[in-house]
Amino acid sequence: MNWFDKSRLAHIVFEHDDKASKTFDVIILILILASVAVVILDSVVSIRIDYGVYFYFLEWLFTILFTIEYGLRIWLSKNKSGYIFSFYGLVDLFAIIPTYLSLILVNTQFLVVIRSLRLLRVIRILKLGRYVKDAEFLSEALKASRAKIQIFLATMLTIVLIAGTVMYIVEGPENGYTSIPMSMYWAIVTLTTVGFGDITPITPLGKLMASLIMLVGYGIIAVPTGIVTSELTFAKTKKKYEDMKVCSGCKSKSHDNDAVHCKYCGEKVVSIIV
Amino acid sequence: MNWFDKSRLAHIVFEHDDKASKTFDVIILILILASVAVVILDSVVSIRIDYGVYFYFLEWLFTILFTIEYGLRIWLSKNKSGYIFSFYGLVDLFAIIPTYLSLILVNTQFLVVIRSLRLLRVIRILKLGRYVKDAEFLSEALKASRAKIQIFLATMLTIVLIAGTVMYIVEGPENGYTSIPMSMYWAIVTLTTVGFGDITPITPLGKLMASLIMLVGYGIIAVPTGIVTSELTFAKTKKKYEDMKVCSGCKSKSHDNDAVHCKYCGEKVVSIIV
Amino acid sequence: MNWFDKSRLAHIVFEHDDKASKTFDVIILILILASVAVVILDSVVSIRIDYGVYFYFLEWLFTILFTIEYGLRIWLSKNKSGYIFSFYGLVDLFAIIPTYLSLILVNTQFLVVIRSLRLLRVIRILKLGRYVKDAEFLSEALKASRAKIQIFLATMLTIVLIAGTVMYIVEGPENGYTSIPMSMYWAIVTLTTVGFGDITPITPLGKLMASLIMLVGYGIIAVPTGIVTSELTFAKTKKKYEDMKVCSGCKSKSHDNDAVHCKYCGEKVVSIIV
Amino acid sequence: MNWFDKSRLAHIVFEHDDKASKTFDVIILILILASVAVVILDSVVSIRIDYGVYFYFLEWLFTILFTIEYGLRIWLSKNKSGYIFSFYGLVDLFAIIPTYLSLILVNTQFLVVIRSLRLLRVIRILKLGRYVKDAEFLSEALKASRAKIQIFLATMLTIVLIAGTVMYIVEGPENGYTSIPMSMYWAIVTLTTVGFGDITPITPLGKLMASLIMLVGYGIIAVPTGIVTSELTFAKTKKKYEDMKVCSGCKSKSHDNDAVHCKYCGEKVVSIIV
Repeated sequence: MNWFDKSRLAHIVFEHDDKASKTFDVIILILILASVAVVILDSVVSIRIDYGVYFYFLEWLFTILFTIEYGLRIWLSKNKSGYIFSFYGLVDLFAIIPTYLSLILVNTQFLVVIRSLRLLRVIRILKLGRYVKDAEFLSEALKASRAKIQIFLATMLTIVLIAGTVMYIVEGPENGYTSIPMSMYWAIVTLTTVGFGDITPITPLGKLMASLIMLVGYGIIAVPTGIVTSELTFAKTKKKYEDMKVCSGCKSKSHDNDAVHCKYCGEKVVSIIV
Repeated sequence: MNWFDKSRLAHIVFEHDDKASKTFDVIILILILASVAVVILDSVVSIRIDYGVYFYFLEWLFTILFTIEYGLRIWLSKNKSGYIFSFYGLVDLFAIIPTYLSLILVNTQFLVVIRSLRLLRVIRILKLGRYVKDAEFLSEALKASRAKIQIFLATMLTIVLIAGTVMYIVEGPENGYTSIPMSMYWAIVTLTTVGFGDITPITPLGKLMASLIMLVGYGIIAVPTGIVTSELTFAKTKKKYEDMKVCSGCKSKSHDNDAVHCKYCGEKVVSIIV
Repeated sequence: MNWFDKSRLAHIVFEHDDKASKTFDVIILILILASVAVVILDSVVSIRIDYGVYFYFLEWLFTILFTIEYGLRIWLSKNKSGYIFSFYGLVDLFAIIPTYLSLILVNTQFLVVIRSLRLLRVIRILKLGRYVKDAEFLSEALKASRAKIQIFLATMLTIVLIAGTVMYIVEGPENGYTSIPMSMYWAIVTLTTVGFGDITPITPLGKLMASLIMLVGYGIIAVPTGIVTSELTFAKTKKKYEDMKVCSGCKSKSHDNDAVHCKYCGEKVVSIIV
Repeated sequence: MNWFDKSRLAHIVFEHDDKASKTFDVIILILILASVAVVILDSVVSIRIDYGVYFYFLEWLFTILFTIEYGLRIWLSKNKSGYIFSFYGLVDLFAIIPTYLSLILVNTQFLVVIRSLRLLRVIRILKLGRYVKDAEFLSEALKASRAKIQIFLATMLTIVLIAGTVMYIVEGPENGYTSIPMSMYWAIVTLTTVGFGDITPITPLGKLMASLIMLVGYGIIAVPTGIVTSELTFAKTKKKYEDMKVCSGCKSKSHDNDAVHCKYCGEKVVSIIV
């Protein structure tokens, strides 16, 4: 086996069907996880004091390895610009930029956690069939409800704008509502039912307005849930509908989707919704 | 083209089908967004110190332009009182009042954020078909569940009243529950799961009562969601029911809503729920 | 008309179909609302200082009137013990007890807010048809999901007990988790996503455990919503199923539930699920 | 009756169908509840000061009794290792270990709250039919949505990682975001809408990022609810589908699941979805 054979190398990098290519995938997977772990640990001061030097070395090692991998992928791609501007191509690029950027700007090295997005590729690699199918099912249902979710978000932003302004006028800067953007931040904290409590209404009128805003928030939390749920229920029903035919004669259920007559008794087969 | 021709002017203001009227719509849209942005920025002290004078000038410029537009709309309407008391007419009026009011009262100029409601008209203007349809779908489902939501709110207010009174008696003014309205505010903060933490139970009995109230809140959060979701699911099913007919013979699906026989094989067509 | 005629008086108190009885109902309704308002206002110190004497007088006036009404209802009932131990009978009793109790114990007068439950009778009186029907629909769906909700609550209490104990051991009294009941209160505050923030984990291990507990809470918030929603959707579908018959011939829809043949064309009528 | 007859003893311990075995079950049930209550009370300092000695004695009494019971169960089991490594066998073991462990380590005695898991056996013992059926229904629906929930959790952890890192860079250690793990804790507190408020964004940019994260959290809270609800709705429909057959002739409904012809009129029976 000639490791410097370009087509063999492309097979190892892009395919996942023999021992060499699978080993490559697993090594990349371990490197990604180790790299993200190093970044997380490096941000904890007490750990950095002891191991900072090793983390710095490891971080650069990982980045150089990923840079080589990125170069390889470009070099081995038949459609180079297609890869570079694909979703995975951009993720691969953004996964190495932060470390280089940290030579100029401070703290940017932490942005390499974007590498975690590279794990998405793993789902495809490992052929986690059921998960891929269910993930597609979920993302289809979310796509179908996109227009409704956008309407909902626009409505919510308008409520946030008006609620924030009202609270700014009622409570004012002396009670923490120092500006309309600050009040809008409070309105988002409240309407999403997060409720940090860093800013809270002090005056009786402010408390009354806040109560109304909270009840509105409680009411509209139902809307996105309702949208997603009805899409999911609908998608599920539709899928099942296509799956199932029942014989009108012998009630047997295992018929193909294009069956017209029952394969057991010859009676007509009918589509049924479960 | 005579710009002072009244019918031509009315066309520009009320219609959206040629270049002049579309330009008018886009100018109004930009003015609304710019005006709301100015109000928001003007409320931030550090920005007002530097640009307050310009903001004051811009705010009056926008208000005068909107006042002229409002006058134009009244003058050009065939049914003047119909426009003035319509939803959009009132929004147009309330969008200019706050600035004039600010000559007498302080801080009212911030209420011009109500102008953001004028953006609703934009959805209609831009003929965002899919959005209009989905928005109607949502508002119909919400209208259908109005009676149930009102019953739910009445039940919740009764729970808030009783929970607030119990906490007022148990915790008392020394622990922050200074009055029944204050306790009711706490009960709303808690039942909606916002949980600011500005008032919290201190005594063991108070903590026990609060735990019960929280579990109730957790339980009833399910009710409005359930109401909205079942309406949305139902509305979706109904719509689909009307959309779909399946041939009982050849199983073909693309039939008109009023079809009785299959257009392919002549067999009866049946309505089917997907 | 003899006002002291007992059967006439019983009619006024128990029925709602002529002018005198309707007036009686409206007076009781106003007295309940006024009485609850007085109690709420009386709890606000700044208002009590000025109007406390009037509130005290009004509160006793309302209580005496309600006591007379309660006596009347017992005297006029044919089945006296039936009324006394009915739901409304007990609410009527508990609505007057707190004021008398306040002669012995402090603060009990605030418990008269329980009078708000008397407003439930108003819904029946005013024959708010649609609301009664929808309220019954909601309470039936909730009743149907009672067993599932009880299982859910039992599961949640077990999680609260174990999560509370773990946090008590991990964080300990020095970080605010002073006892297992206190930790369980924290676990309820956290699992219901209320999150007051009066007690929060301080140690890294505590924060990790809290993160896991929050993710669990986020996951199980879906369960009661799912239970209630599926009951509501199911109840809705069942109701509609019974409502709708479609002619297999002419597709007309307005048939009685017991119809077998279409009233327009004589073809068979089939039940259809919408 | 010979109490020392081994097969008789096995009957008492493992069966629940005569007086002696039922008495044994009830005694164990009371011992579990009493034991958990003692542990909870023992953690409250003010109570421990007065009754700590009694609690210590009781705790050891309960543990010895449960140890004897555990020994009995092993001795009486036909398949000893089968019992020891079964779910209930492990719970029985972990229910006695903490007390013995407390001789070596501090505070471990509180872990005996794990005994509450032993109550699961009670549901089976008391033959709470409806509850068992509904619990199975719930756990089946949750099992069916397991893959989707796992995808959701993986997505959420990626969001938590990226959101935590961004906030760590934007706000930094001086505003409480002392490390990426700490920021990830904050992101979980925020995305689950718990919102303790122990760490909150201080800078304007941090507040803006936090607002976006909260809106994302509000949006994705809909997803697990949607998943569970659609599974529950689907499971409900499927169950009903299997339950119900309607005669196509006389519309009578009470037919067996395997019926082909109506038992009243002989016409064909059709499956119908309610």
